[in-house]
Amino acid sequence: MSWTISHQSLKNEDLLMQESLYSLANGYLGVRGNFEEGYPADFDTIRGTYINAFHDIVDVKYGEKLPAFPETQQKLANIIDAQGLDIFLGEDMEKFSLFTGEILSYSRALHLDKGYTERAVRWRSPKGKVVDILFRRLVSFRRKELFAIQLTIRPVNFFGQVKIVGTVDGDVENYVSESDPRVGSGHNKLLQVIDSGIKEDVGFVLAETKRSKLQTACLTKYIADNGARAEQEAGTKRVTASLTFPLNQAVTVEKRNVYTDTLRHGEDLVEKGLAIHRELEGKTFSDFLTEQKAELDEFWRDADVRIDGDAKLQEGIRFNLFHLLQSAGRDPHSHIAAKGLSGEGYEGHYFWDTEIYMVPVFILTKPELAKKLLIYRHSKLDAAREHARNMGHKKGALYPWRTISGSECSSYFPSGSAQYHISADIAYSYIQYYLATGDEVFLAEYGGEVLFETARLWLETGHFRDGQFRIDAVTGPDEYTCIVNNNYYTNAMAKYNLRWAAKIYDRWQREKPELLRSLKEKLSLADEEKELWQRAAECMFLPYDEKLKINPQDDTFLQKAVWDFANTPGDHYPLLLHYHPLTLYRYQVCKQADTVLAHFLLDEEDLETMKNSYLYYEKITTHDSSLSSCIFSIMGAKIGDVEKAYRYFVETARLDLDNTHGNTKDGLHLANMGGTYMGIIFGFAGLRIKESGLHFAPKLPDAWKHYRFTIQYRKRKITVDVDESGAQFQLEGDPLTITVNGESCLLEGKKSFPLLAAKSK
Amino acid sequence: MSWTISHQSLKNEDLLMQESLYSLANGYLGVRGNFEEGYPADFDTIRGTYINAFHDIVDVKYGEKLPAFPETQQKLANIIDAQGLDIFLGEDMEKFSLFTGEILSYSRALHLDKGYTERAVRWRSPKGKVVDILFRRLVSFRRKELFAIQLTIRPVNFFGQVKIVGTVDGDVENYVSESDPRVGSGHNKLLQVIDSGIKEDVGFVLAETKRSKLQTACLTKYIADNGARAEQEAGTKRVTASLTFPLNQAVTVEKRNVYTDTLRHGEDLVEKGLAIHRELEGKTFSDFLTEQKAELDEFWRDADVRIDGDAKLQEGIRFNLFHLLQSAGRDPHSHIAAKGLSGEGYEGHYFWDTEIYMVPVFILTKPELAKKLLIYRHSKLDAAREHARNMGHKKGALYPWRTISGSECSSYFPSGSAQYHISADIAYSYIQYYLATGDEVFLAEYGGEVLFETARLWLETGHFRDGQFRIDAVTGPDEYTCIVNNNYYTNAMAKYNLRWAAKIYDRWQREKPELLRSLKEKLSLADEEKELWQRAAECMFLPYDEKLKINPQDDTFLQKAVWDFANTPGDHYPLLLHYHPLTLYRYQVCKQADTVLAHFLLDEEDLETMKNSYLYYEKITTHDSSLSSCIFSIMGAKIGDVEKAYRYFVETARLDLDNTHGNTKDGLHLANMGGTYMGIIFGFAGLRIKESGLHFAPKLPDAWKHYRFTIQYRKRKITVDVDESGAQFQLEGDPLTITVNGESCLLEGKKSFPLLAAKSK
Repeated sequence: MSWTISHQSLKNEDLLMQESLYSLANGYLGVRGNFEEGYPADFDTIRGTYINAFHDIVDVKYGEKLPAFPETQQKLANIIDAQGLDIFLGEDMEKFSLFTGEILSYSRALHLDKGYTERAVRWRSPKGKVVDILFRRLVSFRRKELFAIQLTIRPVNFFGQVKIVGTVDGDVENYVSESDPRVGSGHNKLLQVIDSGIKEDVGFVLAETKRSKLQTACLTKYIADNGARAEQEAGTKRVTASLTFPLNQAVTVEKRNVYTDTLRHGEDLVEKGLAIHRELEGKTFSDFLTEQKAELDEFWRDADVRIDGDAKLQEGIRFNLFHLLQSAGRDPHSHIAAKGLSGEGYEGHYFWDTEIYMVPVFILTKPELAKKLLIYRHSKLDAAREHARNMGHKKGALYPWRTISGSECSSYFPSGSAQYHISADIAYSYIQYYLATGDEVFLAEYGGEVLFETARLWLETGHFRDGQFRIDAVTGPDEYTCIVNNNYYTNAMAKYNLRWAAKIYDRWQREKPELLRSLKEKLSLADEEKELWQRAAECMFLPYDEKLKINPQDDTFLQKAVWDFANTPGDHYPLLLHYHPLTLYRYQVCKQADTVLAHFLLDEEDLETMKNSYLYYEKITTHDSSLSSCIFSIMGAKIGDVEKAYRYFVETARLDLDNTHGNTKDGLHLANMGGTYMGIIFGFAGLRIKESGLHFAPKLPDAWKHYRFTIQYRKRKITVDVDESGAQFQLEGDPLTITVNGESCLLEGKKSFPLLAAKSK
Repeated sequence: MSWTISHQSLKNEDLLMQESLYSLANGYLGVRGNFEEGYPADFDTIRGTYINAFHDIVDVKYGEKLPAFPETQQKLANIIDAQGLDIFLGEDMEKFSLFTGEILSYSRALHLDKGYTERAVRWRSPKGKVVDILFRRLVSFRRKELFAIQLTIRPVNFFGQVKIVGTVDGDVENYVSESDPRVGSGHNKLLQVIDSGIKEDVGFVLAETKRSKLQTACLTKYIADNGARAEQEAGTKRVTASLTFPLNQAVTVEKRNVYTDTLRHGEDLVEKGLAIHRELEGKTFSDFLTEQKAELDEFWRDADVRIDGDAKLQEGIRFNLFHLLQSAGRDPHSHIAAKGLSGEGYEGHYFWDTEIYMVPVFILTKPELAKKLLIYRHSKLDAAREHARNMGHKKGALYPWRTISGSECSSYFPSGSAQYHISADIAYSYIQYYLATGDEVFLAEYGGEVLFETARLWLETGHFRDGQFRIDAVTGPDEYTCIVNNNYYTNAMAKYNLRWAAKIYDRWQREKPELLRSLKEKLSLADEEKELWQRAAECMFLPYDEKLKINPQDDTFLQKAVWDFANTPGDHYPLLLHYHPLTLYRYQVCKQADTVLAHFLLDEEDLETMKNSYLYYEKITTHDSSLSSCIFSIMGAKIGDVEKAYRYFVETARLDLDNTHGNTKDGLHLANMGGTYMGIIFGFAGLRIKESGLHFAPKLPDAWKHYRFTIQYRKRKITVDVDESGAQFQLEGDPLTITVNGESCLLEGKKSFPLLAAKSK
């Protein structure tokens, strides 16, 4: 069962959450797992279809607007709904619904290995007609515009007339919540239909966002295996199709939807959609399933992680990897939203999560996709430069905290724009990609510019004082403390950014002077700036507490009182939904521990400091962020407490499947999904990607018999198997020097290593 | 001329600003100095009438709303406009306007000693009719509901028919600016007319705010000295009156307006207004002028400050005192808004300014009014308790940063609700009032409860650590640095608050055990809490820098880079209108120096520290706040630099008269007006009010020959004259020990002191 997520009975209260779990996407197009036939009028559902980066622009309202606060923001638009399929049985037109009549059997499944969902129901109508109904649907990896639904209806005791009514509806709204800051508020109607009609046998709806003036078209045709023809009729806001036939035996109807949009298809969206339909002519739903399986086979060959000994975790890790694959944008317009394409939480914005929690997954499993994600950030460099100017910096690029099209969308800067670390995070992911692939062409074309421009920003932000380089008034990833001086995470990541910018500069000066000259010219960059990067990196102030022997989160963090956890009721978590931010800022309490995260990412402090810090921050971290547990899992393994690492891992692996944060309805937690993968590869297997190569320190949790994963590294494949007997490395490709448990060795073919002091504590 | 503010010519571009200068008020009712006859359609004017504390409730919008952010706020409502008076000349009805025809002479004056304004015009109509027109108006100090306008029209070459049309208009809006955070945005229509009509000879308009459902009525009658009768006609939104008569000689028409409102008059506002009209029957406008003069005579007798040697400054100080008197609320509903009743800036909200910059003026000149202002805060204790709960505190009272009816109206908490010092500021003003008046009854009835509840708050906010009491995550008065640990000002003021709460507690325990017992019961207050107040006060951490020998503004202020003043263009001030707050927070730059302010208020650090701090902060303070210069003036005198003190004083004294901050149009800067008075009494005369009595250190700026002021102190009057020969103290009342230049002495009748080391630098 570990390749299938399924539910064998219908629980109304779980359906909203399941809409996210069963969502399908291909990085371009995403459809939530709504019921084709709909719900009762007052049923709680978020019916959604999204195109990555397809957004409208809306005003941001402030009680008090201060200079350089963003006046508008982007918002992922819910687009034309092509999910609708109604079934009417008999001359008396009994309408199929899971909320009337009787459900005789029900099952629903998401096939992770095949890339489609299905829903099978045996249903008795209120008047006693019994039929089997099967819906299958896929969003194609091969043909990004395609969303196909196959309906099969089979008679059980009813053999009369059946009418199928399909709708393609442009009269859609976004979901809003006024009280939850993690969901958008206001502005629910973003799209308006500007044309609809029938061309050939294809019905279409063309719609446009109100302010960004982006257009999207949905073009739909119906193919029935009994030859029944769809009568399509275009209204002002929707196209309706009906197919009527006698039901004698199983009948299959495919609803084939093709989406096009301005960002990817330019103009003439209807014509371009029709052309795609013509290309697909002759193909069947089965063909699409076959293609989809081929795509997924390829993915799993490179990316699968096997865990023997825990079926639930095995299910979790595969589910998470599958959704990561579904969510990743593949063009310069798009990235991975906090919720992927599975919901509207965080308004479809891209954050730092992508670089720190998701890109690493693709670097190791599908580097060509990681590259596309990085190129998105390069394509937004101009916007990041403009943002830096808005924030008072004369040079450099400051990436916005949340965005779709590149401009800042955060309206609460203390835990938004103040998170300057995002620029260093992006630089970090460029460096990690470069280290893992050795892709000099990419570095030359994209990486250098991003590294130089982000490095510049740090010189603009920080200052030298008493021989130290200090960075004031920023917020680290831990949003329970905002606007501080010398946030350890930010300073450490900026140091890495600066050091690498200087390093690449130096190397190009020696090896690629032409390239450097042209880039310097483009950026009006002077040698003195590089000197300053180097000096700032060397002098970077990293807070250290002599007494506790830990890295304090910032200059004054440790002087604050510790949060009164004993008197905090359990239902007051997550704290951010129950306490004024100022109350949180007053105490030592972490949503996630950013110092521990820096220790993981950079791996530069001594083990003692990392361990002390881990234990210190663990006591004051609430894990209210879904980005937290996976890091505590990874670093638990690092400091030698594998069983604790395991407990944190368990919390991450099924966060959405078990809805442990209670808000999976708004979409999946993509960063945490990446974190699950990282928990195994960086956590239990102890991988770090450094200039000196790959470093491993494999460990095995008690509960597992064995785990296996494969990573890509500089045109090689390395498969790692870990069980009680040790860690076995299998290399495909040229021999490679790796470091295992601190020992460097040449890997050729297969090689085994004992597990080092496993299972401590 | 020093009792009159006047303009002898009409400059269109100054009229908007003059609306604030010529505003009239009595603490209850305020009317801007608009032209009765109006302006051309597109003319820039803010036509306003306000009742102190009369507000509507409006939603606060947030891009991201976090817990305990205020959902609504109060907003001072522009109310029914009774200013309108139109004059039509001749059968051809030529309408008087200063924007048509020809102005043959023009003058406008505000009489500070008589409490009214007048505007005299000789005007030639486009067709050549020449008349003299004189408007006089007053808002009565004796009868708070009364706003009267007297129009005198005198023929020069025109002797035909004149028609006067008066309007009372309920169709009014508030002024909004989307770009200036100091002015309200959105929500311009707060009032709707719910009734209008004519009763007896009085026309009335009754209006209600949309959401707070407060009502106000304006009742108007017209009295012409030639016996002409007004024909009144009630429309749905306004009442119009017309008087027609032949113009043979000067005719005088009084428009007598009476306002009532829900907060002060309860129900039946129209009936109550009519009753007031009946009470006023038989009185003439001249009678009102006489009464007004009597009120002002009394005020000036106690409050006047004379400066010999600088007529401009003399004008400034009197203008400022006059407007303070006009602005001060006299009932438990009302206080002094940042702009008084002269405009809509800061939406009519009350801030800490009242306690720190205005109450001291009244304590020394009109203590019964100071008492009323303090009672307002006592009446809002429940709301302050509720605010404390919202902000996560289990006990105590936290006053909101800005409010009208007692709940927090700040929508930007880093420089709003985070300014916890407001609670200590209010406590401070209670203590100062008590020290200056010895009013034990007031202390028992109001002061103790406020002191205890605010003291409690500090225990909720701060914490003991390593023998120090520390207060984290607050913002001091300097809004260019927000959310810091151990802001010197806050800690020092909290210490004073805590010390006095404990002191009063102890004293009552000895002297008034019954009183203490009942208050303890009311507040569920335990003796242990008092012990903690004492301990927290003793252990209060006050940052001190050994190297610079100054008090740092907070824990990390001195580690930040200094703002690049050299490269800041002159038109980028005030910085708050040109830089993202995060940019400001990153640097050592002060809107006002709160450490210097604390040094003034508490006078507890040694002179060396105060002097070093003054010189340090002076270099990095922009004085972008109108609350800054006066403090630098006061402390300039303290550290012995009288000429620098003088230069700062000059900046404050005429800030509004000369519109030096450019935004006088939105209303007067009341705090700065108080600051002017304080600059003389606390600055040049060096007064401090302490438990040990009054301390003086009189100094004389070079530019002045002499200055004089009178203060009230414990039922005595002390008049101080300072000239080159020394300082002469004249006491009315029982003998009193005072301290002058550090020497204690018994004052009986008159006594002279030499000036101490004056005019240093």
